[in-house]
Amino acid sequence: MKISEAFIPTLREVPADAVIVSHRLMFRAGMIRKLSNGLFSYLPLGLRSYRKLEQIVREEMDATGSLEIKPTVIVPGELWKESGRWDAYGDALMRIKNRTGADFVVSPTAEEAFTYLVREELSSYRQLPISLYQINTKYRDEVRPRYGVMRGREFNMKDAYSFHTNEASLDETYRKMGKAYRRVFKRCDLTVIPVQADSGAMGGSGSEEIMVESEIGDNTLLLCGACDYAANVEKAGCKPDYEFNGDGDAKAAAAKAAAANIPQQEKIDTPNVKTIEELCAFLKTDAKSFIKTLIYKAINVELDLSKAPGCAGLEKRKPSVGAGQDSVQAYPEAFFAVAIRGDLDINETKLTALLKAAGVTLADETDVCRITNAPVGFAGPAGLETVPLIVDPSAAAISDGICGGLAKDLHYKHVAYGRDFNAWMVADVRTVKAGDLCPQCGAKLYEKKGNELGHIFKLGAKYSKPMNVTYLDEDGKSCVPVMGCYGLGLDRTLASIIEEHHDDDGILWPMSVAPYQVIIVPIKYEGSVKQTADGLAAAFERMKVECLLDDRDERPGVKFKDADLIGIPLRIVVGDKNLAGGEDKVPKVELKHRKEKTNRLVPLEKIVDEVTGLIHAELAGLNN
Amino acid sequence: MKISEAFIPTLREVPADAVIVSHRLMFRAGMIRKLSNGLFSYLPLGLRSYRKLEQIVREEMDATGSLEIKPTVIVPGELWKESGRWDAYGDALMRIKNRTGADFVVSPTAEEAFTYLVREELSSYRQLPISLYQINTKYRDEVRPRYGVMRGREFNMKDAYSFHTNEASLDETYRKMGKAYRRVFKRCDLTVIPVQADSGAMGGSGSEEIMVESEIGDNTLLLCGACDYAANVEKAGCKPDYEFNGDGDAKAAAAKAAAANIPQQEKIDTPNVKTIEELCAFLKTDAKSFIKTLIYKAINVELDLSKAPGCAGLEKRKPSVGAGQDSVQAYPEAFFAVAIRGDLDINETKLTALLKAAGVTLADETDVCRITNAPVGFAGPAGLETVPLIVDPSAAAISDGICGGLAKDLHYKHVAYGRDFNAWMVADVRTVKAGDLCPQCGAKLYEKKGNELGHIFKLGAKYSKPMNVTYLDEDGKSCVPVMGCYGLGLDRTLASIIEEHHDDDGILWPMSVAPYQVIIVPIKYEGSVKQTADGLAAAFERMKVECLLDDRDERPGVKFKDADLIGIPLRIVVGDKNLAGGEDKVPKVELKHRKEKTNRLVPLEKIVDEVTGLIHAELAGLNN
Repeated sequence: MKISEAFIPTLREVPADAVIVSHRLMFRAGMIRKLSNGLFSYLPLGLRSYRKLEQIVREEMDATGSLEIKPTVIVPGELWKESGRWDAYGDALMRIKNRTGADFVVSPTAEEAFTYLVREELSSYRQLPISLYQINTKYRDEVRPRYGVMRGREFNMKDAYSFHTNEASLDETYRKMGKAYRRVFKRCDLTVIPVQADSGAMGGSGSEEIMVESEIGDNTLLLCGACDYAANVEKAGCKPDYEFNGDGDAKAAAAKAAAANIPQQEKIDTPNVKTIEELCAFLKTDAKSFIKTLIYKAINVELDLSKAPGCAGLEKRKPSVGAGQDSVQAYPEAFFAVAIRGDLDINETKLTALLKAAGVTLADETDVCRITNAPVGFAGPAGLETVPLIVDPSAAAISDGICGGLAKDLHYKHVAYGRDFNAWMVADVRTVKAGDLCPQCGAKLYEKKGNELGHIFKLGAKYSKPMNVTYLDEDGKSCVPVMGCYGLGLDRTLASIIEEHHDDDGILWPMSVAPYQVIIVPIKYEGSVKQTADGLAAAFERMKVECLLDDRDERPGVKFKDADLIGIPLRIVVGDKNLAGGEDKVPKVELKHRKEKTNRLVPLEKIVDEVTGLIHAELAGLNN
Repeated sequence: MKISEAFIPTLREVPADAVIVSHRLMFRAGMIRKLSNGLFSYLPLGLRSYRKLEQIVREEMDATGSLEIKPTVIVPGELWKESGRWDAYGDALMRIKNRTGADFVVSPTAEEAFTYLVREELSSYRQLPISLYQINTKYRDEVRPRYGVMRGREFNMKDAYSFHTNEASLDETYRKMGKAYRRVFKRCDLTVIPVQADSGAMGGSGSEEIMVESEIGDNTLLLCGACDYAANVEKAGCKPDYEFNGDGDAKAAAAKAAAANIPQQEKIDTPNVKTIEELCAFLKTDAKSFIKTLIYKAINVELDLSKAPGCAGLEKRKPSVGAGQDSVQAYPEAFFAVAIRGDLDINETKLTALLKAAGVTLADETDVCRITNAPVGFAGPAGLETVPLIVDPSAAAISDGICGGLAKDLHYKHVAYGRDFNAWMVADVRTVKAGDLCPQCGAKLYEKKGNELGHIFKLGAKYSKPMNVTYLDEDGKSCVPVMGCYGLGLDRTLASIIEEHHDDDGILWPMSVAPYQVIIVPIKYEGSVKQTADGLAAAFERMKVECLLDDRDERPGVKFKDADLIGIPLRIVVGDKNLAGGEDKVPKVELKHRKEKTNRLVPLEKIVDEVTGLIHAELAGLNN
């Protein structure tokens, strides 16, 4: 392909909103252009790399036995009502009404469409397991799309869904997918960090995210230097840095407090002292002695609250018209108190998962006053009966603590779990931080920022049950299959490859996803240089080597700069001097690998073999 | 690929709404499933054929020098406001508001996105011509989607757009595209009919549709048996079957009437006579003597009406916020009278194009009464001054006619064009019918029903002008490029292939788009038959022959029926008897082409060569 015919609008300047390297380079190399905020067009060069990545993903999915299908991008809202996500998904779901008033969504993900498809076809256990995938357009109405295709509104995702008669079968596919993902990223020469991830309301260990380290990553990862532990902060646990028997038994705790002769709970006047820091200064102690209590509002809570304190009058939402028979109905809104040791932070993702909620936020001042009977700053677990109390083990381990007194300017000291307050639920809601101890080996954890490229997830019956998918087992009994889902973002994978493979001059494409494998740069495109360059381009074409020929009437410096910018792995420079040959009179061309600093002269008659050899070796290295 | 692992849910029964062969067979063969009205998922088998078609289209587009890009499916409404289509497109455009209230559309076509992209990159004439295409998801909110993927709401279209400095350059790309389309359909073994098509407000001959004959076609084609004339009825012309000098010169017509001594116009009482048929009976003459006059309401009329009769007070629509600088503003609504010879019908597409309108409909009774000052049935051209009068040449050729009298129960006779009425415009608005005369050679035309698979179209500056696309020409002058657009529907092409290639038992895939090239059917998948079948499948895989192996535990009859249904071109039956060899003891298998009635025995050791030879020959035949 001649550059003059290729539409590769390279640029020296970039728009101000292109703040990360991949966005800048994709823009400058003429790979993408912005159509609108969060909406990008792939230009020919970008599309070539994108298609190669797509093919790698397709091959690795096929190798797992997953079968490619192609549902529509626009999906009936009815299916989302059956699953319950029409109400639960939030504003990122692009909902549409068509001309007849029917509801549709622009798919942000496709559990519903795949589950519907399988429901209609499934009758017998003999058809299971089945694994299906698509590589298709997705849309999420992000509030703040940014970083180019790293966080766009419309994007391309590979999403696979598997259906199984039992957990063991799901585990097997889950493992295969995990391996396939590792292979995809290896073939792209991308360094990834697989981490344990939040599995939402499902619980269990069945959720892994494949992360790539990134300064602008929207995930915090906790990693252990001593063992292989790695987890998203949303999920990360740690070894307790306190003594605690682990099950939150209140009687045992009370007995322990008695045995230790902890004095009785006692009021302290704390005028104008509200924050933990102020309290520490006032009482001359440290934050680990405090039981911090926060009031949360949770929305769409699926956890059963029928017997929870203060929840007697709480009503569940009416099912949407069209909701699945067994679709779980939620409490639209409920409040909770959460107690944790004073030096620690509450992890809202863990809390959300615990409550099987759509989300949690700190309650506003009015709600706090109503619930704690005091201004903000005086919440405490002792005597709180207006809302269910969730106690982190770090707080349940305290047998002589300080906490808010449920009245203005009042705190308590000598507060003991089990004696002075009790939990509706003891559960880990702690935000693990760098320096906390690895739950596997006890070494100190460290943090990295990461972007999620892939996510594999055991769904269980989260969709199959409300959408009423059934099959007959060997005994003719009707059963609900368990499911897995497996997403991979193609655009951000492509951008991440550039984040990892670039230098000051431009992109350094791995051979597997390079838009072209070779670029021929004639010093001046005329005479014997032109003839040689054309001949080489034709020879490469015959060999199925993807070759770009810079036929432009530009200075060599401009051509070299563009070749470096767009990052073609191998560059061949054709010039009069080398064609004339040196002392040995053997016509030569210059060969340079984009990753290397120096070039070398290769006899013209050997260059095609040399280049094809390099390409095959590099591809083999990535693919094996 | 083993059938047991392939998810090919074949069926004997079809849903009631599957009324055409391709819909029935795609459904029965497990190629597609319905997600909702007009929304279909491709299953693995259907997707394989779809991808092959996509690749054929891609190759032929690339061969024209067009470059593939990938804009988003969701496109900012602002761009559609610039072009004017936000208002003009009608209800089939799926419009969305996102969470911030911004307008978006789900692309039904992508003139705006491509024009925007080129606008941002274009500066110099040196960059032109440029031709870009995508193969991407489209959505049109059809009122009555039906016939499976033949007329779905979401569909896949290849759409190309080209930009040029002059008409000659546009012509060249237009011709290349026309050839590329013919090659695409030839490679799919599809018999197509290229026809002249309506080019809407653009006029000229720059619009060709590639049709496929179809009983359920929504287009009527007029074809000449004697020459190569072929046109969509929307566009079709015919040789006049009356004497007419062709330019509608009113003075010449009046002179002619005088020379022929046509009596003066005269009133006739026609109580309770309203239709042409009743008038014919009443006056004992035939419909050809009548000047039929109909009142039309047109919407979004872009034609200049500032000097048209009765249009003095008519105001143009205010531009939408965000409309392009030069965007054409239209009259939201205007009325017209159209006169044509009594035996002929008005072609509303021609009328729409003539008025540069978004659409026309017959005026309702109230409007007719207001405009003609009489009940429906008495409109006539003589004395009508309330609206602009458009006269078809067939009516302008009448020098002694009968027409409505603009009053209840009144008609006129001896009415002559040029003497008794005049035209605001004389223009061809005649619906050509089978039996009318070919405009090229004068032979009789005949009709066929057709479905449009492709449409190539010279757009001129229809988008580039309102969207303010400019470049500097050789003299540094700012110019607006002219454009072409070129659409091809992939789903309906696939369905049309099945419409043309099937028999009572199922599909007969052309080799180029067959989901698999060979199917191996073991009589019973066990022992040496299994071993042989597996060996053949492995050999084909090594040879890159796409092979399906029916490993199911089903009766041979069931397997044969499914193989015929899904239409794999070559079928190899492996059975004990033939493997044992006959008298010559040479192990054999049975080979049958899906298109042929009989099978033949081929020695096992020659079958792979035989099959690869057949595949290559068939592909070569289609591709060359």
